[in-house]
Amino acid sequence: MSIKSETIGLIAGGGQFPLLVAKGAAAQGHRVVAVFFKGHSSDEVSSVVHDSKELKLGQLSKLISFFQKNGVTKVVMAGTINKPKAFDIRPDFRAAKLLFKLATKGDDVLLRTIANEFEAEGMQVVGPHVYAPELLTPSGLLTRRKPTEMESSDLSVGWKTARELGRLDIGQCVVVREGVITAVEAIEGTDAAIKRGCELGGKGCCIVKVFKPGQEDRVDMPSIGLKTIEGMKSVGATCLGVEAGKSLFFDLDKAIEFANKNGMTIIGLTPEWFEDK
Amino acid sequence: MSIKSETIGLIAGGGQFPLLVAKGAAAQGHRVVAVFFKGHSSDEVSSVVHDSKELKLGQLSKLISFFQKNGVTKVVMAGTINKPKAFDIRPDFRAAKLLFKLATKGDDVLLRTIANEFEAEGMQVVGPHVYAPELLTPSGLLTRRKPTEMESSDLSVGWKTARELGRLDIGQCVVVREGVITAVEAIEGTDAAIKRGCELGGKGCCIVKVFKPGQEDRVDMPSIGLKTIEGMKSVGATCLGVEAGKSLFFDLDKAIEFANKNGMTIIGLTPEWFEDK
Repeated sequence: MSIKSETIGLIAGGGQFPLLVAKGAAAQGHRVVAVFFKGHSSDEVSSVVHDSKELKLGQLSKLISFFQKNGVTKVVMAGTINKPKAFDIRPDFRAAKLLFKLATKGDDVLLRTIANEFEAEGMQVVGPHVYAPELLTPSGLLTRRKPTEMESSDLSVGWKTARELGRLDIGQCVVVREGVITAVEAIEGTDAAIKRGCELGGKGCCIVKVFKPGQEDRVDMPSIGLKTIEGMKSVGATCLGVEAGKSLFFDLDKAIEFANKNGMTIIGLTPEWFEDK
Repeated sequence: MSIKSETIGLIAGGGQFPLLVAKGAAAQGHRVVAVFFKGHSSDEVSSVVHDSKELKLGQLSKLISFFQKNGVTKVVMAGTINKPKAFDIRPDFRAAKLLFKLATKGDDVLLRTIANEFEAEGMQVVGPHVYAPELLTPSGLLTRRKPTEMESSDLSVGWKTARELGRLDIGQCVVVREGVITAVEAIEGTDAAIKRGCELGGKGCCIVKVFKPGQEDRVDMPSIGLKTIEGMKSVGATCLGVEAGKSLFFDLDKAIEFANKNGMTIIGLTPEWFEDK
């Protein structure tokens, strides 16, 4: 199969993820240009792409001009923009018009609106997993240890609740202990929600992170990594369920090794996982 | 109107609330007996009731015997049992049987199940507001300042979201800033959720606390007080909406005075509040 070479416009948030995506797209034969944001993303991405530009959050017009000048046909967003900090956005006129359109500004609505803006300019928005498919969470039991009966029951409670919460465009993660929801993630981030829920719930908490029903997989996939598992261990959590195929798992091999060493269990959840019980 | 004198069995949690209820019931001409819990409630309640007994959490059989011995006809629960600590419950056989019946142990299900247990013994469970009706939150604007347009919009987002969350038996409180839900209360308590959401959302957050649809008003009404308003002030929150008639507002006069002095706004919310806009 030959893939048509295109020019990919990468919007780079924080962390190593934008680098993986830039390298993955280049390895697939594409030309990559990137924008990155002071205080949010590293400028390291500049060194692995054809051209790049530093912007401030909210400079949507400049971003679109830069992509148009470079003949971008596909846009991909990768890496975290720290959400609390994003309240400091200084929107330009085009961004301000967009924000005005939004009645409720949950993540999902905001990101989908931005995506629509690119599509109106003839640039297709695609998910970062297109260029880094190896990051998608596999399904089923990923560790040596299976969930206990209590953990299985908590996974089920967490799965149902997290999906309902996603429907309200609130977070993607819940902490469960013996049937009680001890924490719900809003904008504090998964790590903070896990820490809080486990400190309140005590040892043996179960973490469930899901893709929001109707969520934009092009722009906002849930993600998990070795650091998540290490954080769980430090507060006594024993079980992680994360939606398979619709979430990104960074450093999966190291995470599984760490979990196995510490008697933890990790499951790539699908609706079938619960039907089989 | 003459009220029939009855024997009221008071289950006393923490704080001054059990004392108010004991005194209110006595003022209505009832005989009051109370149980209280080491580390959770003060023994001060002993001094204002006919008889009392100290128990450990989970000693449901002893509690029921004590009430039966005293000819209790109505049971009332008042004051907080610290939920995180409640994981340390050592249930007796009767309590354990109850816990076993519960598939998910959200607050509401747990409390309703306990209430049903009393009713099965011929003791009617009533809400503490029956003996302290002056604590119910009045409806409408309670402060001099009205909500701004943005606060009104955030109240509406918070009201809808908090009620949906209540339907899932998760918390009663959300923090909103410019349409974004910045915190959702699970078991950490309202004060902690307010602090987190406001620190993440910045100055100008709006707090909404509601009665859960289908919640047991006999055993678990949302409550708010002067301390809530002081806590809001310390993190820059400016607006509080709390469900009128279905929540308890402690030290209301002092809270309003404090809010007025600090330019804050407090609203007793009803569905009509939003229809009138």
